[in-house]
Amino acid sequence: MTHARRIVLAARPEGRPTQDNFREETAKLTAPAEGEMIVRTIWLSLDPYMRGRMDAAKSYAPPVEVGGVMEAAGVGEVIEAAPGGHVPGTLVVGPLGWASHAVVRADAVRVVDPEAAPIQTALGVLGMPGHTAWVGLNEIAGAEQGETIVVSAATGAVGAVVGQLARRKGLRVIGVAGGAEKCALAEAELGYDACLDHRSHDADGLREAIAAAAPGGVDIYYENVGGKTLQAVLPLMNQRGRIPLCGMIAWYSGQGLDEAMALPAVWRAVLVKRLRVQGFIVFDHAHRFDAFHTEVAPLVKTGEIRWRESVAEGLEAAPQAFLDLLAGKNLGKQLVRVGPDP
Amino acid sequence: MTHARRIVLAARPEGRPTQDNFREETAKLTAPAEGEMIVRTIWLSLDPYMRGRMDAAKSYAPPVEVGGVMEAAGVGEVIEAAPGGHVPGTLVVGPLGWASHAVVRADAVRVVDPEAAPIQTALGVLGMPGHTAWVGLNEIAGAEQGETIVVSAATGAVGAVVGQLARRKGLRVIGVAGGAEKCALAEAELGYDACLDHRSHDADGLREAIAAAAPGGVDIYYENVGGKTLQAVLPLMNQRGRIPLCGMIAWYSGQGLDEAMALPAVWRAVLVKRLRVQGFIVFDHAHRFDAFHTEVAPLVKTGEIRWRESVAEGLEAAPQAFLDLLAGKNLGKQLVRVGPDP
Repeated sequence: MTHARRIVLAARPEGRPTQDNFREETAKLTAPAEGEMIVRTIWLSLDPYMRGRMDAAKSYAPPVEVGGVMEAAGVGEVIEAAPGGHVPGTLVVGPLGWASHAVVRADAVRVVDPEAAPIQTALGVLGMPGHTAWVGLNEIAGAEQGETIVVSAATGAVGAVVGQLARRKGLRVIGVAGGAEKCALAEAELGYDACLDHRSHDADGLREAIAAAAPGGVDIYYENVGGKTLQAVLPLMNQRGRIPLCGMIAWYSGQGLDEAMALPAVWRAVLVKRLRVQGFIVFDHAHRFDAFHTEVAPLVKTGEIRWRESVAEGLEAAPQAFLDLLAGKNLGKQLVRVGPDP
Repeated sequence: MTHARRIVLAARPEGRPTQDNFREETAKLTAPAEGEMIVRTIWLSLDPYMRGRMDAAKSYAPPVEVGGVMEAAGVGEVIEAAPGGHVPGTLVVGPLGWASHAVVRADAVRVVDPEAAPIQTALGVLGMPGHTAWVGLNEIAGAEQGETIVVSAATGAVGAVVGQLARRKGLRVIGVAGGAEKCALAEAELGYDACLDHRSHDADGLREAIAAAAPGGVDIYYENVGGKTLQAVLPLMNQRGRIPLCGMIAWYSGQGLDEAMALPAVWRAVLVKRLRVQGFIVFDHAHRFDAFHTEVAPLVKTGEIRWRESVAEGLEAAPQAFLDLLAGKNLGKQLVRVGPDP
């Protein structure tokens, strides 16, 4: 019988989460039923959306129950399978949770080809974050050559792909990120024409810096953060601008709500400038995953699309790595190395 | 030489406008140059967007200058024309301003057929407000049979047409209006399945009333007002709902800004529910005017689409009628009768 180490939600956070919101436990896994497999986790993905799952409030997916395993996608190796599962040794990506091992259904995972790219890219540039970037840029924003885009969280798992895809498409690409190191990376490796550090500006200063980098105004604001960056960008939007609303990490834990812009000014900008603000969730666009993967995987293989990762070592490191992610301390895709390569 | 009585912007308002913001004057009109005509105003249109023109702030159109004639569309009769103008006696609709007479270019007006419908409908159900309703419902919201729509300012010049067109299209149509009289009209004559009086509810009470009338949730919120109605409807929106943002009269004069929802809650709803919020200005959709008119004019002629109007008598009544419009005292399209029929 296989035992799994797992990290569960110990208590719902009030405001910013802390280590106390998590607890490690060990559980015996049930034998896989027909169509199921036991997967040994190799890589675990940490993403900002998980903060929403920790609250009781209804979101686009049900919350994690108190005492339940924290949700996550992971890459792992099948070690045991019932009929209908993949044979042991197969590498898969799917909903493994914050756990060393998980029982999952074969139809809930995708097989990962280790020859195509390093397997952990199935959680980043070639996985959900890359797919999100591609959908938001192409299908929600309808980006066109010659336009100017501002990307918040510019070096994050999603933003880094948005920036590079936008550059390849012929847009002028302005990033906003937290810290000089991220901005330097954005300009040097990720195709940004310019990247502004929101930590060294207030909203007005950030607006002036973006305006200087975007003399023709902003056609698309790829919204990952809310807060000060939104405040800075909104007055710079051009007529018929688009705001694909992908995340709002600045507000996930209830910070900054006081200083937020009141709604009437935003509503006025949307009306007067004929903006389109559109929320989207990548899970609604599963039918476009293959189109995304077909386009981007070769570019990753040739190195034309680059990716960065921050790796925490060991499942027990996941909570702190997640807290650091929410605080913007990671550089690129945040991963946890849970087990050895096959 | 023709003299014109005109109402000019005497001073920019701070908050709610008053009579003191307007002044009547008399001016001699210059003789029409090639392509120009002198038009005698018969009907003048008053619309909420004019409030925005009174502020110095940049909007989608330049503000009215202090001392300048208040802008408005009007229906009038050509009384003098230079070569390139329409012959005297022609009825036209165009930018006449708050004035008894105006010099306008022939290419800035549209000829009105007095046989098709009462000529003042060119300012209402068959003019800019009707066109706005049609564009917002069909082209911005993409309304589909079986959906549920909530229309704010339900009996206003725009809302009344939205409600009737939506009903004809097979939507469930819920109105929100100010006062029992308007709500009774909405249900009795304008095709609304239900109409709620925002004056007899706070935001939570209004939300409960709308929820009861829209048991399947709200797919489209046709936004004319902002404020309490927005607050009431937003939590009721269904996934992939649309908010065509057409106006925000509750906030035009700076009232209610304190009580307004803060942005993070709105942003969260847009994200989690994948909403599309889209501002639009009918002037961008001039190329669709003919399609609108071809569809709706026959329905007006047969009485299948109804319209209501509030008429103020005499140009000098325009300022008070406009103040009353902003306060929601009108019923249906607000007009000013400036001169006799031809």
